Amino acid sequence: MAKIGTRNTERIGKDAILKLGMVGLGRMGANMTLRLVRGGHQIVAYDPNPDAVSAIESNGAIGVNSLNDLVNRLSIPRAVWVMVPAGDPTETTIHSLSELLSAGDIVIDGGNAFYKDSIRRADQLEEKGIRFLDVGTSGGIWGLESGYCLMVGGEESAYNALLPALQTLAPIGGVGLGHVGPAGAGHFVKMVHNAVEYGLMQAYAEGFELMSASDKFDINLGQVADIWRHGSVVRSWLLDLTAQALQENPQLQDIRAFVEDTGEGRWAVQESVDLAVPVPVIAASLQARFRSRQEEPISAKLLAALRKGFGGHQVLKSNRERQE
Amino acid sequence: MAKIGTRNTERIGKDAILKLGMVGLGRMGANMTLRLVRGGHQIVAYDPNPDAVSAIESNGAIGVNSLNDLVNRLSIPRAVWVMVPAGDPTETTIHSLSELLSAGDIVIDGGNAFYKDSIRRADQLEEKGIRFLDVGTSGGIWGLESGYCLMVGGEESAYNALLPALQTLAPIGGVGLGHVGPAGAGHFVKMVHNAVEYGLMQAYAEGFELMSASDKFDINLGQVADIWRHGSVVRSWLLDLTAQALQENPQLQDIRAFVEDTGEGRWAVQESVDLAVPVPVIAASLQARFRSRQEEPISAKLLAALRKGFGGHQVLKSNRERQE
Repeated sequence: MAKIGTRNTERIGKDAILKLGMVGLGRMGANMTLRLVRGGHQIVAYDPNPDAVSAIESNGAIGVNSLNDLVNRLSIPRAVWVMVPAGDPTETTIHSLSELLSAGDIVIDGGNAFYKDSIRRADQLEEKGIRFLDVGTSGGIWGLESGYCLMVGGEESAYNALLPALQTLAPIGGVGLGHVGPAGAGHFVKMVHNAVEYGLMQAYAEGFELMSASDKFDINLGQVADIWRHGSVVRSWLLDLTAQALQENPQLQDIRAFVEDTGEGRWAVQESVDLAVPVPVIAASLQARFRSRQEEPISAKLLAALRKGFGGHQVLKSNRERQE
Repeated sequence: MAKIGTRNTERIGKDAILKLGMVGLGRMGANMTLRLVRGGHQIVAYDPNPDAVSAIESNGAIGVNSLNDLVNRLSIPRAVWVMVPAGDPTETTIHSLSELLSAGDIVIDGGNAFYKDSIRRADQLEEKGIRFLDVGTSGGIWGLESGYCLMVGGEESAYNALLPALQTLAPIGGVGLGHVGPAGAGHFVKMVHNAVEYGLMQAYAEGFELMSASDKFDINLGQVADIWRHGSVVRSWLLDLTAQALQENPQLQDIRAFVEDTGEGRWAVQESVDLAVPVPVIAASLQARFRSRQEEPISAKLLAALRKGFGGHQVLKSNRERQE
């Protein structure tokens, strides 16, 4: 376990002020740049969208128009934080950086990459002597004010070099931040974090659905969520959000019952299969999301057809046929 | 929704100080008595165990040796809080109270009764004009200091009469307390609360098991739990407990993988069946607890036997046979 607050001997800047590059100025990257700038760090920021670059310039960062410019504006050893979507954008960005950076520099992937990709990228960068950190980042749009939870994998020397920036991004007080293992460990822990998140969300959601379905009581869901926030065993930040959502929109009007996923839950279930570890709740949460996207699943049609087949039970017409 | 802080016209005592009876001085009842006494209320306390009565007397309550004594020490309208195990103890206690109390008095069940029992008891008490409140109570052993989350069902006049005591028991600031509906609603909401709790616990537990099983990283579970407590989307009070448990006992030594349940999860799943509402995560959490109590389930033996039957796959000897 890394000692938080350890003094590093090789800073990416002077004292506790770092100069770093930020690639990707979407919701997460822009807010993280803002929190770093507020913390006194110098950030050289790039995004393919020039409007995002202008916006961040007006907030105190140094905007640049290419990865090449970004690398040239940093001092050796350089550190570049990559905050772009997982998959191709991350692959392309890190590949380009590997051609622009030199031995001793550091690439940080703060996105939601699959941890095995992060292990591979760390190995590829290491061939050129470039160090790599994979930083699982949680906190969403609230991180700007509250600080981000940061789960960091990679070389300890790189972790220590980046520590002043990591501490600025994390919540105040040296909490919510840690070096959890070698390259890949940060994204592995973040993958599990998100899978747990699916399970927590689904548990609350089922409870509120059960209350709303009661044929004996007319439960005010927003009131119950707010009561549970204080003193109860189920109090949590997700419950705070639940209470807010239900109080702002008690009937959840204009919200379609359609739930996306961005991959971490799938990877976690795949990992559980690889390791033969039972994760019934995490797997069920993922499947509930898949189910939410089906209007007329073939499986349910088939069950209805079978019930007709062996028992002569009635079959309802599909939504489509009813509308026609 | 009840207005918290509403002035009631018929107090069980003078101003904001109430005089009430407490039946049952187990972990919950004794701590709640203590919080009420600290809040300035006069509590007449009874438990079949004389040691529990002596202990509470030394903490400022008035101890009595029978329900009859307890009822005689209260002034009309009397209010008696019942904090005994669900099932027979609650049934017997409330039945006895119904014979000792008079019209206008109030019985409060703060235990974990099944909500349909609470509806029935409210009806039975109403025949004698006795009012009933069912109070779902969460907070465990931490409630004494932090305050209890209280979900209250029953007549509004009784809720208002008890409000000063409820506010003392609840967390400071008039939060974590509310009148959620007629008789039974408090225990209904508490039943769902506990079912959600099962799901949340199972989601965390599966995440930590998955990390501990990793063949690539040696994740420090206690460190990760502590990191997640700050800034992350999964932060919660249960996670605080998880971090504490893992830091005190990283290997969870001397803790058998055997998980009890006290009924609320079963009732919630039964309710979901009655209402035909899917609750896959809540149901899976309950089943995971059942599974934890089986050493050699017949279902797994049968699967092994079938695999041998159709494919000649090896069958392992049972634990018992190996030990012999």
